[in-house]
Amino acid sequence: MANYNVCTLPGDGIGPEIIAEGIKVLDAVGAKYGATFSYDERLIGGAAIDATGNPLPEETLEAARTADAVLLAAVGGPKWDTTDSSKPRPEQGLLAIRKGLGLYTNLRPVRTFAALSDASSLKPEVIDGVDLMIVRELTGGLYFGKRERFFDEDGAGADGAKGQRAYDTLEYREYEIERIARQAFEMAKVRNGRVHSIDKANVLDTSRLWREVVHRVAAEYPEVELIDMLVDNTAMQLIAYPRQFDVVVTENMFGDILSDEASMLTGSLGMLASASLGDGTALYEPSHGSAPDIAGRGIANPLAQILSVEMMLRYSFDMADAADDIARAVAEVLDEGWRTGDIKQADTDPNQVVGTERMGDLVVAHL
Amino acid sequence: MANYNVCTLPGDGIGPEIIAEGIKVLDAVGAKYGATFSYDERLIGGAAIDATGNPLPEETLEAARTADAVLLAAVGGPKWDTTDSSKPRPEQGLLAIRKGLGLYTNLRPVRTFAALSDASSLKPEVIDGVDLMIVRELTGGLYFGKRERFFDEDGAGADGAKGQRAYDTLEYREYEIERIARQAFEMAKVRNGRVHSIDKANVLDTSRLWREVVHRVAAEYPEVELIDMLVDNTAMQLIAYPRQFDVVVTENMFGDILSDEASMLTGSLGMLASASLGDGTALYEPSHGSAPDIAGRGIANPLAQILSVEMMLRYSFDMADAADDIARAVAEVLDEGWRTGDIKQADTDPNQVVGTERMGDLVVAHL
Ligand SMILES: CC(C)[C@H](C(=O)O)[C@@H](O)C(=O)O
Ligand SMILES: CC(C)[C@H](C(=O)O)[C@@H](O)C(=O)O
Repeated sequence: MANYNVCTLPGDGIGPEIIAEGIKVLDAVGAKYGATFSYDERLIGGAAIDATGNPLPEETLEAARTADAVLLAAVGGPKWDTTDSSKPRPEQGLLAIRKGLGLYTNLRPVRTFAALSDASSLKPEVIDGVDLMIVRELTGGLYFGKRERFFDEDGAGADGAKGQRAYDTLEYREYEIERIARQAFEMAKVRNGRVHSIDKANVLDTSRLWREVVHRVAAEYPEVELIDMLVDNTAMQLIAYPRQFDVVVTENMFGDILSDEASMLTGSLGMLASASLGDGTALYEPSHGSAPDIAGRGIANPLAQILSVEMMLRYSFDMADAADDIARAVAEVLDEGWRTGDIKQADTDPNQVVGTERMGDLVVAHL
Repeated sequence: MANYNVCTLPGDGIGPEIIAEGIKVLDAVGAKYGATFSYDERLIGGAAIDATGNPLPEETLEAARTADAVLLAAVGGPKWDTTDSSKPRPEQGLLAIRKGLGLYTNLRPVRTFAALSDASSLKPEVIDGVDLMIVRELTGGLYFGKRERFFDEDGAGADGAKGQRAYDTLEYREYEIERIARQAFEMAKVRNGRVHSIDKANVLDTSRLWREVVHRVAAEYPEVELIDMLVDNTAMQLIAYPRQFDVVVTENMFGDILSDEASMLTGSLGMLASASLGDGTALYEPSHGSAPDIAGRGIANPLAQILSVEMMLRYSFDMADAADDIARAVAEVLDEGWRTGDIKQADTDPNQVVGTERMGDLVVAHL
């Protein structure tokens, strides 16, 4: 019987509560499909800052590296918010583990659950059947380029006024674009055969390089249709005609913005998971944040975390049947009317509004 | 009687067709409110590249500088699309005139016309009453920072592979942030007293500087509420709860993406105008592009251009009554059922679907 070692990173806020449900579902599905999982829990984010001063302690990265997969919940909270660049911030832990594990591909599927179709702020006829996959480059661009902040003695201001200055660098290298493009085309091959490549080639040099390299890679995939789209236009098209998209590939910052925008098509961020893949261990996490306002109250929605377990089974353990089983179980629980507070609807039976643990139990019961 | 000199820049695609209607309305409103306008038409964008090789000929910039206001239609088209950085591109004309006139403030109002409320892909209860103003920084950030593309002989790739490299620089100076923040707070004072300042302060140094400077300026406006919001979250909130926004202030690239996203709340980009203000001559243009696919057919929607004339009267000529008159006339024309092809609805009378010129005439008739 296969045994997998999963590094678990609860992080901050609702993290510990929801990751417990992810583990519960993983154990249950393992028992059914003949795999066992052992867990190695480590610190990341604000919790790690509080305990060690470092948002990603070296031993956490080491544990992640040697694990078969990493299950992350969420990091961050107002406690650690600061504009002082010299202070550690929880998000640095997230960026450091992405870089440390070489997780250059972030997959964020967006699809609507039939039971939740009226949760969207978009009209049903616009979002019906939406099923898209955002492929975001995750270890390059503005997030990792050289940045600096300094006081400009020479007077950078209008009329030579002295003042603060800051810059960040958006940088890409050919091989970085090539490998993420390839991921997108491979993904489109097993999906619906269409890739939208997003850039701002009418302004940015990095975007012009991006566009050229993506077209070169596209030549290897004659069966996949490639469409270039400017990022500003994409921000419109995602709302106006979301069904036109199958796979959407884009650089790090555009991907951050567009994937969050796209998540709203479903009306329920609490349902969306993501996978970050690279050459080594992969990492799975919900798309939502640490929701500090509701932390510790047992009411957080664990379904995105549970669906991140689904992605783990699919991409790291080649257990597609088990993954499908989780997806089906979640859909059934919703179809039966069960809701956490964030996804409850006007016609939800108040007796079916449940907490974090109960929702986890319901999914397990449907496996 | 006041006489104003307006520099007109038809540009490319549908530009010449729609700007003619803008001029028609300006003349009509001038006759009613006691002002005359003289026009100085110049080249910009692809048309300027074809005629002179330069997307912003020096004499165009000079004419714009000495005019009382600039009325621009749109630039760009597939004819001039290229990823070769050494070739001139129409958009460079737009960026150069923004920089040349010091137009650091871009105002993009987003409001819905009652007659078009069902054109949106969002539910009516979500967009009813939306009335927000995006204040986008327009002469800084990634658009104007140092950029370069080169072949890396030393091997930048994984495993030392050689390859292409490119970078763009996102840079901000204190005074640039200060002056755009001040514009946003002044705007909020005469609107609904709320500013959302958008950044990515959990990652970028420029964003942390942005946030600090905006808070310093905010101290001068105790009557205005300031809310910091991360750009990715904003991309969600704009769709989920658009009514929470009054004034939204942000750096150049975020503003490009978010203002286009916000424009879709109305469901009709063909209705949205923008003003670009600085210390000298201001520039007014529709928010939409040059629509090369329908150019020359007399079917383009001139209303965004006409509403950019409305903004010109308001911000450059202090003719608020005349501006209000145009806004009212446009609303009435729509209320009567008149539509161009892009905004026609399922229940539009086919006899009321009109072309560019006719739509301009209808607005004039309602003044
Ligand atoms: C927390 C933050 C740094 C992160 C990002 O922007 O990448 C988050 O928004 C995400 O999308 O995973
Ligand atoms: C044409 C392009 C350079 C321009 C921009 O991105 O600023 C346009 O999209 C806009 O928003 O005015």
